[in-house]
Amino acid sequence: MKPRFAHSAALPGFETPAAFLRPFAGEALMLVRAEAKAGSALPAHAHPHEQITLVFSGRMRLRLGTEWLELGPGDIAYVPPNLEHEALFLEDTVAFDAFHPLREDFLAKLASS
Amino acid sequence: MKPRFAHSAALPGFETPAAFLRPFAGEALMLVRAEAKAGSALPAHAHPHEQITLVFSGRMRLRLGTEWLELGPGDIAYVPPNLEHEALFLEDTVAFDAFHPLREDFLAKLASS
Repeated sequence: MKPRFAHSAALPGFETPAAFLRPFAGEALMLVRAEAKAGSALPAHAHPHEQITLVFSGRMRLRLGTEWLELGPGDIAYVPPNLEHEALFLEDTVAFDAFHPLREDFLAKLASS
Repeated sequence: MKPRFAHSAALPGFETPAAFLRPFAGEALMLVRAEAKAGSALPAHAHPHEQITLVFSGRMRLRLGTEWLELGPGDIAYVPPNLEHEALFLEDTVAFDAFHPLREDFLAKLASS
C-alpha cells in the first residue's frame, strides 16, 4: 500500500446514528475520525477488533465493560477485543478511533455510501 | 488485556533526540503520544510496522519516501511498512502515532527509563 496523506475532516465518510465516520485504512491498521453531535449516543456493542480511542475535541462519556469514564481532549482509552462498550457525547466531539485489524464493516459502508 | 484510560499528557514516557514519547499499548495496536519542540527533527528511518500519524496540535513537515508534506492539526498520514520517513517540527507539536504491530523497541525503552 502506498503512503497517503489527508486532511481528516475532508475524508469521505458515512452517517451512523451516533456519528459521522471517516475511515482511513492501511493494511491491518485503521484510523477513523468520528464526528458526533452533543447528546448523541453510541449504543452498547462489541467487536473482535482492538480499539484505542483518542478525543481530539469535545467531551464524551465512554463505558468500558462496567466502568463509565469521561474523556476530554487528549484523553485516550483502550478497548480490548470483544469488550462491550458504549458512548454518550456531552459536547460536539471529534474523536479518532484506531483499530486493528481493519473494520471491514466500515469499509463496506464507505464503499456503498 | 484489560480496558484502560489515560490522560495522554500524563502517561510515562522517555526522551528521544526528536521528541518525548509516551506509548499506550494494546496487544497488537499501539498509540504513541509524541511531544516535539519547534526546530527538532526526526532523522530518516524505517520500520516494518504500519504507522498512521495524526497531528493533534502544532505543525510538522513529514517526508514519506520521496514526498514532503506539511501537516497541521487534524491532518493524518499513512506510513506503509519499511518506507523511509523523516520529520521536521515547525512548531511545538503534539502528534499521535498509531502502530501495528507493537513497537517493542519503544516498550523496552519505556521499561528501562
